[in-house]
Amino acid sequence: MRGITEEDIENLAVGAALLGTGGGGDPYLGKLMVQKCIREHGPIQMIDPSELPDDAWVIPTAMMGAPTIMMEKIPNGDEALKSMRLLEEKAGITAFATMPIECGGLNSTVPFVVASKAGIPLVDADGMGRAFPELQMETFHIYGISGTPMALHNERGDRVMLETLDNHMLEHISRGIAVRMGGAAHVAEYMMNGADVKRTSIHGTMTLCMELGRAIRESQTTKRDPIEAIKEVTRQSIYGEALVIFRGKITDIERQSTDGFVRGKARVSGMDAYEGQELRVDFQNENLCAMIDGELQAMVPDLITFLDQETGMPITTESIKYGFRVICLAIPTPDIMRSEAALDVWGPRYFGYDTDYEPVECIQQRRGEQHV
Amino acid sequence: MRGITEEDIENLAVGAALLGTGGGGDPYLGKLMVQKCIREHGPIQMIDPSELPDDAWVIPTAMMGAPTIMMEKIPNGDEALKSMRLLEEKAGITAFATMPIECGGLNSTVPFVVASKAGIPLVDADGMGRAFPELQMETFHIYGISGTPMALHNERGDRVMLETLDNHMLEHISRGIAVRMGGAAHVAEYMMNGADVKRTSIHGTMTLCMELGRAIRESQTTKRDPIEAIKEVTRQSIYGEALVIFRGKITDIERQSTDGFVRGKARVSGMDAYEGQELRVDFQNENLCAMIDGELQAMVPDLITFLDQETGMPITTESIKYGFRVICLAIPTPDIMRSEAALDVWGPRYFGYDTDYEPVECIQQRRGEQHV
Repeated sequence: MRGITEEDIENLAVGAALLGTGGGGDPYLGKLMVQKCIREHGPIQMIDPSELPDDAWVIPTAMMGAPTIMMEKIPNGDEALKSMRLLEEKAGITAFATMPIECGGLNSTVPFVVASKAGIPLVDADGMGRAFPELQMETFHIYGISGTPMALHNERGDRVMLETLDNHMLEHISRGIAVRMGGAAHVAEYMMNGADVKRTSIHGTMTLCMELGRAIRESQTTKRDPIEAIKEVTRQSIYGEALVIFRGKITDIERQSTDGFVRGKARVSGMDAYEGQELRVDFQNENLCAMIDGELQAMVPDLITFLDQETGMPITTESIKYGFRVICLAIPTPDIMRSEAALDVWGPRYFGYDTDYEPVECIQQRRGEQHV
Repeated sequence: MRGITEEDIENLAVGAALLGTGGGGDPYLGKLMVQKCIREHGPIQMIDPSELPDDAWVIPTAMMGAPTIMMEKIPNGDEALKSMRLLEEKAGITAFATMPIECGGLNSTVPFVVASKAGIPLVDADGMGRAFPELQMETFHIYGISGTPMALHNERGDRVMLETLDNHMLEHISRGIAVRMGGAAHVAEYMMNGADVKRTSIHGTMTLCMELGRAIRESQTTKRDPIEAIKEVTRQSIYGEALVIFRGKITDIERQSTDGFVRGKARVSGMDAYEGQELRVDFQNENLCAMIDGELQAMVPDLITFLDQETGMPITTESIKYGFRVICLAIPTPDIMRSEAALDVWGPRYFGYDTDYEPVECIQQRRGEQHV
């Protein structure tokens, strides 16, 4: 257990935006909310999964909906806590801790707000090790945890207790509710005990986010190459070492809010070694696939993120603009995310691509050999 | 309190389809479900609102969604009961009785199934005196009852407890849930005590449905004109006397299931006195407006229903077919449905028509004078 400070949250927001692969919402808002909580209530306690009693209840909390809409409906910070309370009441339990369901600007920070306001610890883990657009895309789901019952709140105070027979229907119905609640809802779901957290979550991802954020932010003052700093941190993690797959300038960005998601594509015109080439990145809240001149370079569940060429800061889907000079970075996902069962849930075929998953490091290895 | 028999339900289904103004679902399925219940559990007790203790809890039950979809997903009859149970559990009360929210093929019969299976009486009243497509279109809402908390079930067993700040948001979110539940959901809502039932419901509408159904069915054996039989029953009710506004042949029917509703229009080519004229009836689950050669003849909240010319049997929106020979009948709605507050909720402007409400009997009076 350790106390999380405002500085830690500054780092978390940057690192979570990196692992958030373009999604998970704007890191800025979430960061401000948590820092305000820390100023009011003191450091937030973060606990490693190994420290959890096996029978302690953990209730993950999050926002769901289109990140673009979340930026227009600023949460007041109480909604996810209310969802957690509603779930506690329904289940007749008390949450020992809360936990993020994913890494990403908002969804890494929302549970810190809940932890601070409820005076409970936050578990240093999550269920995606990145961000994904749908609720069944959780290691929790893949390893047998029921997402239901699920509580949803909006900023007005409308609320729902949802129980479904399976996690796919949970996603389907709750997405409809989030849309009708105004495009975004604040949720509590995948309630589980400490033993299940240890078994099904991806451990240490909040610490990793903070380390990545610190590496990027420090590189700005030390003038070190932020890519080198990111490579060093990822190399020592359960993720693979980060790979640069493109450098260029954003020439086109399509973005549509439909069915509770932001879907679209970004096109990037190559610079430096990539001069004359074009990168296309498709997204559904999160970046899904990266193609250079029509050839796949990286795909879900590997992480694809745009960084600002100057600062190394990650850029979320809703912030990408024409003319931005970007680095497209890919990070090999942890092995636990690449099992056959996992690829069924979040592999490229699920998102409509007619291709089997190929690890990004293998694609880049092949590509490097072709270029020699 | 009186016992309802299979014969009563036969009449109810016909009369409710008439007052259902084309909506409320297919009467056939609902009728079979109730008759099976009566064979298994004996007569269902129907209670007049005046007989209710003021502090007894009444939980209305219904289906919501597109009637066309309801016909494809046949309910097993337990779903609405489960929703009532979920609401009882949530509120910590026991239902003394259930009640329909509207008149209409399915929604007049669903609460009889619930009453039979739960062994409780059904209140002889409803909240629309006809059928309407949206949940805030209830005298309950107009006279100050909260629709929330609301329970929803589908035939799979997925379920929701929904609480909203107002009845418009209740309609908005629950409609989204019904869509995601597969196009239809079984609901319990507008929980209220006996005093509120007396104050806010339209009394005696189930009895009226049975009388109308009996009049139509008896006219088939006695060879009496069914229209005359309907006029006689409506003349003695809180409704106005039924008016024939058109006779003709269906020449076109447009029907689309969108956003959880069936929307469309029916066109009818005139016969007999109406030769050379064209009637158009617009619907959103229920018939909304009737126009002859572009001139409004009847509009919500007055009741507009198609009857088969041969049998006098009402035809629901989803049963209308090209070539049917029909009578278009209008019934003046009770005064309680014509108050300013009521017309704000279900007048023609709410449905997008750029016109004030004009009572059907006034329009027809004017029209008759013009023809003299």
